[in-house]
Amino acid sequence: MDKLYVIKIGGNIIDDSMKLKSFLKDFSSLNDKKILVHGGGKLATRMAEELGIEQKLLDGRRITDAETLKIVTMVYAGYINKNIVASLQSFDCNALGLSGADGDSILAHKRVHPGMDYGFVGDVDAVNSDLISTLLEKNIAIVFAPITHNQQGQLLNTNADTIAQEIAKAMSELYDVELIYAFEKSGVLLNADDDSSVIPEIKPSYYQELKEKKKIFAGMIPKLDNAFAALKSGVNKIIIGKAEDLKQLTEGKSGTSIINE
Amino acid sequence: MDKLYVIKIGGNIIDDSMKLKSFLKDFSSLNDKKILVHGGGKLATRMAEELGIEQKLLDGRRITDAETLKIVTMVYAGYINKNIVASLQSFDCNALGLSGADGDSILAHKRVHPGMDYGFVGDVDAVNSDLISTLLEKNIAIVFAPITHNQQGQLLNTNADTIAQEIAKAMSELYDVELIYAFEKSGVLLNADDDSSVIPEIKPSYYQELKEKKKIFAGMIPKLDNAFAALKSGVNKIIIGKAEDLKQLTEGKSGTSIINE
Repeated sequence: MDKLYVIKIGGNIIDDSMKLKSFLKDFSSLNDKKILVHGGGKLATRMAEELGIEQKLLDGRRITDAETLKIVTMVYAGYINKNIVASLQSFDCNALGLSGADGDSILAHKRVHPGMDYGFVGDVDAVNSDLISTLLEKNIAIVFAPITHNQQGQLLNTNADTIAQEIAKAMSELYDVELIYAFEKSGVLLNADDDSSVIPEIKPSYYQELKEKKKIFAGMIPKLDNAFAALKSGVNKIIIGKAEDLKQLTEGKSGTSIINE
Repeated sequence: MDKLYVIKIGGNIIDDSMKLKSFLKDFSSLNDKKILVHGGGKLATRMAEELGIEQKLLDGRRITDAETLKIVTMVYAGYINKNIVASLQSFDCNALGLSGADGDSILAHKRVHPGMDYGFVGDVDAVNSDLISTLLEKNIAIVFAPITHNQQGQLLNTNADTIAQEIAKAMSELYDVELIYAFEKSGVLLNADDDSSVIPEIKPSYYQELKEKKKIFAGMIPKLDNAFAALKSGVNKIIIGKAEDLKQLTEGKSGTSIINE
């Protein structure tokens, strides 16, 4: 099977145009098949403020009402996605941007939660691996915006980490998939305040041990639980590390690798 | 050769959600391969106003400065494009939205004009018929936003009529192309004030005659000149008519057909 990188970048890279450009240059130079999933950054929040749209929070969670959905569709699927694609084209990387509605690439349903309405938030049901592989086989890098649809005409705001994970899982039937979460830290840290305390490798048994000894920063646990779930679903390897170190992450020279025993 | 419809819809349809929905339903029911090209509508102008971005005009022409480009990228390639795609999906039409940067589908250059800087406006150089036909052959309807790129990382605002025409020309090598301009009038009218005075068919010789006798409404001349240019470049037929009559337009029962002698 061919290797496929599914790489998720967070808002801190999106918000820094120099860092983003440098990351996209590194991404372009990866010779294997590749998919980029991007989050939102601060632009959507800023745009909402400028348009006088109030951010709605419920129990500390952001609610995607109709106006917020409109903004994230414009900013994520429009501005950010198309500028990333144009930038990749300038580095001779033929890229194509998609939302989950495009080609029915990611089908979702509006989140159902007892006693809580998240608004237009989608939970993923299916990834169209046939369309994705057709594009990859034409040597096109796919850039996903974190917007899905429900097949009934409704766009839905969807967590970018989850999208990356669901794509990685679905594509594992056809490719040898490595899922990379590129963020602001150098990897999973033993000491949250010390960026040099990266754990180079975590296997399931060691993760149990780290959790029991409470050596994992609480904020990392959902990310790691998701990573191990992806591993169980056929993803070959999950790497968590710094966006600036993309090349080293792919070479196993930086970041934390989550692998099977 | 298979038949391919390239259909351009104007802003007046985009701005009317009921008309748009009805049009998209009709579009979905066309059994042949199909491409939709959409313009902008009033949303971009409204959004610019709300954000306090001044529209710049030079000799009566709108200039696309950096802020305006940002807005049209968000509104055209994001909000309008993705909502059209999601709506088509709800009518069981598998659609996929593209800007010209996506898959390098439409390459352009920044307009060069002596004594006049239009800003980030693109004139089309090439259409990637290989990518477009790959998607069409998977029975995907393609929805184009009027945004292109210059291969150097710059997105460019591009006239939707021109995009439709350039796509129709490029695809004529592979398909039997009919180019439809769906707008607010019933076709090319002999009397601009009488919507029942539609000319059913115009061939080049008759067009010359109409122009000489000044029987063509001046505003229609650039559209018709473009239509005849497309005809010369291999497009089989150009139909100009009312968006609400899409089915009848494809059946030759409504609108004006521009065909060779």
